[in-house]
Amino acid sequence: MVLLLPTLFIGIFMSDLLETALNPRTVAIIGASENIHKIGGRPIYYMQKGGFKGTIYPINPSREEVQGLKSYASLAQLPEVPELVLIVVAGDKAVEAVEDCAARGVKSVVVMASGFGETGPEGRATQQRMTDAGRATGMRIYGPNTHGLANFGTGAIAGFSTMFIERPPQDGPVAVLSQSGGMSAMVYGLLRERGIGVRHVHATGNEADVTVAEMAWAIAHDPEIKLMLLYLENIANPEVLARTAAYARTRDLPIIAVKAGRTAGGQQAASTHTGSMANEERVVDAFFKKHGIWRVRDPHAQALCAQAYLKGWRPTGNRLVVISNSGASCVMGADAAEENGLALSILSASTQKAVATSLPGFATTTNPIDITAALLSNSNLFSEVLPAVAQDPSADMFFINIPVAGAGYDVEAFARDTAKFEALTGKPVAVAAWQDTVAKPFIAAGVPTFANEAQAVGVLGQLAAHTALMNESFEPWHDLQAVHVPEGSGAYCSEAQTLKLLASHGIPIVKHQLCQTAAEVREAFVTVGGPVVLKACSAEVPHKSEFGLVALGVQSADVAATIFESQRKKLTEMKVSHEGIIVAAMSRGRHECMVGARFDPVFGPVVMIGAGGKYVEALKDYAVLLPPFSLEQVESALRGLRMAPLLDGVRGDAPMDVKAFAQVAVSVGRLMMAAGPSIASLDLNPVMVGAVGEGAVVVDALLERGGRS
Amino acid sequence: MVLLLPTLFIGIFMSDLLETALNPRTVAIIGASENIHKIGGRPIYYMQKGGFKGTIYPINPSREEVQGLKSYASLAQLPEVPELVLIVVAGDKAVEAVEDCAARGVKSVVVMASGFGETGPEGRATQQRMTDAGRATGMRIYGPNTHGLANFGTGAIAGFSTMFIERPPQDGPVAVLSQSGGMSAMVYGLLRERGIGVRHVHATGNEADVTVAEMAWAIAHDPEIKLMLLYLENIANPEVLARTAAYARTRDLPIIAVKAGRTAGGQQAASTHTGSMANEERVVDAFFKKHGIWRVRDPHAQALCAQAYLKGWRPTGNRLVVISNSGASCVMGADAAEENGLALSILSASTQKAVATSLPGFATTTNPIDITAALLSNSNLFSEVLPAVAQDPSADMFFINIPVAGAGYDVEAFARDTAKFEALTGKPVAVAAWQDTVAKPFIAAGVPTFANEAQAVGVLGQLAAHTALMNESFEPWHDLQAVHVPEGSGAYCSEAQTLKLLASHGIPIVKHQLCQTAAEVREAFVTVGGPVVLKACSAEVPHKSEFGLVALGVQSADVAATIFESQRKKLTEMKVSHEGIIVAAMSRGRHECMVGARFDPVFGPVVMIGAGGKYVEALKDYAVLLPPFSLEQVESALRGLRMAPLLDGVRGDAPMDVKAFAQVAVSVGRLMMAAGPSIASLDLNPVMVGAVGEGAVVVDALLERGGRS
Repeated sequence: MVLLLPTLFIGIFMSDLLETALNPRTVAIIGASENIHKIGGRPIYYMQKGGFKGTIYPINPSREEVQGLKSYASLAQLPEVPELVLIVVAGDKAVEAVEDCAARGVKSVVVMASGFGETGPEGRATQQRMTDAGRATGMRIYGPNTHGLANFGTGAIAGFSTMFIERPPQDGPVAVLSQSGGMSAMVYGLLRERGIGVRHVHATGNEADVTVAEMAWAIAHDPEIKLMLLYLENIANPEVLARTAAYARTRDLPIIAVKAGRTAGGQQAASTHTGSMANEERVVDAFFKKHGIWRVRDPHAQALCAQAYLKGWRPTGNRLVVISNSGASCVMGADAAEENGLALSILSASTQKAVATSLPGFATTTNPIDITAALLSNSNLFSEVLPAVAQDPSADMFFINIPVAGAGYDVEAFARDTAKFEALTGKPVAVAAWQDTVAKPFIAAGVPTFANEAQAVGVLGQLAAHTALMNESFEPWHDLQAVHVPEGSGAYCSEAQTLKLLASHGIPIVKHQLCQTAAEVREAFVTVGGPVVLKACSAEVPHKSEFGLVALGVQSADVAATIFESQRKKLTEMKVSHEGIIVAAMSRGRHECMVGARFDPVFGPVVMIGAGGKYVEALKDYAVLLPPFSLEQVESALRGLRMAPLLDGVRGDAPMDVKAFAQVAVSVGRLMMAAGPSIASLDLNPVMVGAVGEGAVVVDALLERGGRS
Repeated sequence: MVLLLPTLFIGIFMSDLLETALNPRTVAIIGASENIHKIGGRPIYYMQKGGFKGTIYPINPSREEVQGLKSYASLAQLPEVPELVLIVVAGDKAVEAVEDCAARGVKSVVVMASGFGETGPEGRATQQRMTDAGRATGMRIYGPNTHGLANFGTGAIAGFSTMFIERPPQDGPVAVLSQSGGMSAMVYGLLRERGIGVRHVHATGNEADVTVAEMAWAIAHDPEIKLMLLYLENIANPEVLARTAAYARTRDLPIIAVKAGRTAGGQQAASTHTGSMANEERVVDAFFKKHGIWRVRDPHAQALCAQAYLKGWRPTGNRLVVISNSGASCVMGADAAEENGLALSILSASTQKAVATSLPGFATTTNPIDITAALLSNSNLFSEVLPAVAQDPSADMFFINIPVAGAGYDVEAFARDTAKFEALTGKPVAVAAWQDTVAKPFIAAGVPTFANEAQAVGVLGQLAAHTALMNESFEPWHDLQAVHVPEGSGAYCSEAQTLKLLASHGIPIVKHQLCQTAAEVREAFVTVGGPVVLKACSAEVPHKSEFGLVALGVQSADVAATIFESQRKKLTEMKVSHEGIIVAAMSRGRHECMVGARFDPVFGPVVMIGAGGKYVEALKDYAVLLPPFSLEQVESALRGLRMAPLLDGVRGDAPMDVKAFAQVAVSVGRLMMAAGPSIASLDLNPVMVGAVGEGAVVVDALLERGGRS
């Protein structure tokens, strides 16, 4: 085990309580074992081997010595109160040990045993006893149901993962924080296999107390950490993670997260694994996006991209040059570029000319550059073509695809030339080479090397998109206007109340009039201007169209008066209170959009924007945004929807007034933030959006009251 | 090189002309080289090493001997006319060699040189000279721009790929057919790396004559071939490929294809690679699906799934059991299942009880089964849990996910138990293990082993879906009714003509009347029943709404008469011929769908079905089907659309009359097949679909004439 980096700073950056877990002076192991393949044996073995400078106290009443260290019969027998205690015993004994540790003033405990919160209500109750014991004295708990913690900067390895034997540690710039012990080990192992050094490998298990987010906050302050990888099965305290991400952006620390439980089946499995509550997928995506955290599928994807991030590459553009000795690999490289949000660089005439001097006449000098099987006859083609391309200003990134090489090819030279090229340009370069013999020289030369174009170009695309995301401006909103949800006892506000509230927050609403008599309706028909809509206004009938209480396209005052009477009669029959009948203007020739919002118990206000109409839930063409967000972010989200082509006008339509719609979304976001939990949900559907300059107008609105904030 | 299988049958199954390429008695190499790393040296080296039984004639005027064989000055000097000639010389010399071979009665030539059809019009013209020379005498041409052919069943290796040195050949049950030489080599190499034997590795390059499809047809008749892998950049002769696929299904030979050039950038690159014309992506997908060919992204995906296919597994269901020693891997396994179209098996109570007897109390006995880190303490958990699950009738397939193991784990036992389990159940089993030390014992035991759950479950999902696809019934249509496109000189038929044609083919059309006078319009208002639509009927104005020649929701006969006059006036002003004004019924409370069709120059009739309305092209919520297809296939395609939730009725809607709509689609398919190229395109939009029992009705229709068939 090699300790590359100084450990002194750890006391400076980390909160005191986390420091006793990550850099303890004294560690006790309750259930210490002589056998290094037992859970109680591994941490002692790892710490002794890993250069841990503190004191280790094995606790095992049946032994005199454990792994060469004096063994103690109990916590009480130790010469001092240890800062950190590893609890390897199971069941009730684990709970008792936690309580004992708390009583004796231990600062941190790691509980490795499983069989608590993840098993059901009874297990959750037992786990709560541990939480309570810790909270009572301020002792922090890691786990239960965890592989433990490992800090290769200090040698404090309070974990038992087999992986630290399989892939020997080396301190380095990466932190791995995970709810799952297995996944922390796997990411660590995958990184080590690629020769990447890892300092922090911590698993929080059931998170009876300390969460991944809290650890992330502490570890983001370790200035030597250049990349943070998270594995999550739920997001319990998004505010801590959000704060961490905001801080990480200020110091250019990329965070890449796996959030498993993407599907119904996966969420069910997660609840029996770490006892995680399900988060809604789209909200999780929106949360990560908002905070500049990149989400990937699995630990393999995390390990795959690490080297490119650690190179410090932060591409300023998304234009890719593809170079290959196979035409087919050029084709597939071009496909991969488009599929990963990259454009192909358009090479200048002078670049093409320079390339052409090296290549045979039948080769392609446009991008992708096919240097063809002629590489077999002339090993210099690489070294000649690369510098020619390097100077092209349209080239933000480079991808070299070598599907076939070997005997007869000077692969060492290709690798050397590529590394030189990379150093020369300072721009991202990725290589795809599946053959060991071809990949090895590139890997040895420090060039990020992948098995195929999907992976290589995927990582380049991720790097470009993540860099752009991390650079997005991020302004919190100020001067929020207080929200007064109208008084009332029911679950919903009436439509008239809701429209009034929206209007008072500057949101454009449909021209309408609340009428109590047929005469008022006749008058409203003229004021509002026909044709009109008649809608019964009752807080007790939120879904009025289902009861025939909406009449569209009413063409005359006479008809309106008749409908008024019949709607009022219907309300009387339904025995519901009401505020009258709304006469509202009809919107024609506009697009039906919608803005929805709800207060999520975990994430707080959540805003949905997209296509409106009756089938919003069925067709799901909407994006999720977490406030605060900008007009530009609304527009960018709209551009990602299936309805996006309509925004610019198709089939003779004028372009839509996207800005006006975005303003409605921003206003709803502000309203929801100010309202907090006092509004459970708010649905504006449809919001009719006209052509540019015509604005957007809320035609129908429903507000569901929440608990008081 | 090991020749496992007898080569005698090759003469039986292969057409004579392909046999002279794949199993020649005599081979000459024009441009033969002593250097085995030169293109002219490799084939001689490979054939001598590979046990080729025929005679090899090197042709090189400057040498007495090449690689120990007598060298000849020219083709004319040979003691006999060789069956197969490899032409290694370039440019005009290659063309002259082709012409010379044809003149002398050679049966097949392989042209390796590049610089022909892929370079532009001039190159295409030169290439055409070769094609012409071959056609004149019936000589078949492979290439130009190819790595050549390799038959490891006969040792006839008319190719120069470096990969045959890098990964030594072994005859086996796989055939690799590719337009690209690089990709044929890569798939071969990836398969050999996995220990899979490969018999055929053929690249057709620019396909001046022989295509991948033709080779596929021949090689599908090799009874020893159990898996066929294709790499295509375009599909030039779909009918041959379709015939091959149909035959392959009769003998349970799965075909897995890569079709590169999926994007605009990729298609552009393909045109400069093999000179391929772009195929439309959705049509390509529909073509593969129709013929039971599975499409994957790249050669890696082909190699990844090969072992599972070669096991002969053809799962009859899609229910998966996930087993892991990591809870997180259970979660990700469950996610992967859902994402790959698999369901999680619901284990019976007795299975769960049997599982529970082995596992610790906190482990999960429902599916996914989390055997937890307890595996570290008890290596028998695998052997105990697997048989318990094996008997469950709900288990179609098994996935074992081992993200972490190593020291302390008896991996050899896990692998042995898994292989036993596989043999016992006969059901598909896939393992994910990224650690070499963990994967190796499983690989040695013959269990398909992958790096992660995305790959493993992806392959299982593919196997289930591909098996279902290959088993889909496939009935050609008979008794097609002749189609008489109405006479006319313009590009389009009028709407009245088109509706009449549809009706004559049994397709339900909107109730309407073509009127010449205001009086007729008034009468039609009554007959058809108001409110009505008025539409000018002119073959010269196909997009009439753009000219204000459509009036919707006309409420009275008086208004209808007025509109009639104004539309007729407008037509006169536009100076276009017309057939009158159509008065048609309005359809209310129905869903707007569409059926489109066109005659594709490569694939023939193509039918599109999906959401209708003004924005079909912009929103693209449609599926592509190639006739013939069944009602069930239409319904299944509809279920894959974004509008699918609407089919069953949401928000209080009744379920849609999907069968009636499917019948329209089938009728359009029959009509298009019968019409052939005489109809260029046909758009039925909207087709209004009512609730079950209410049927579907074509409201608007446009027919574009094609060339005569």
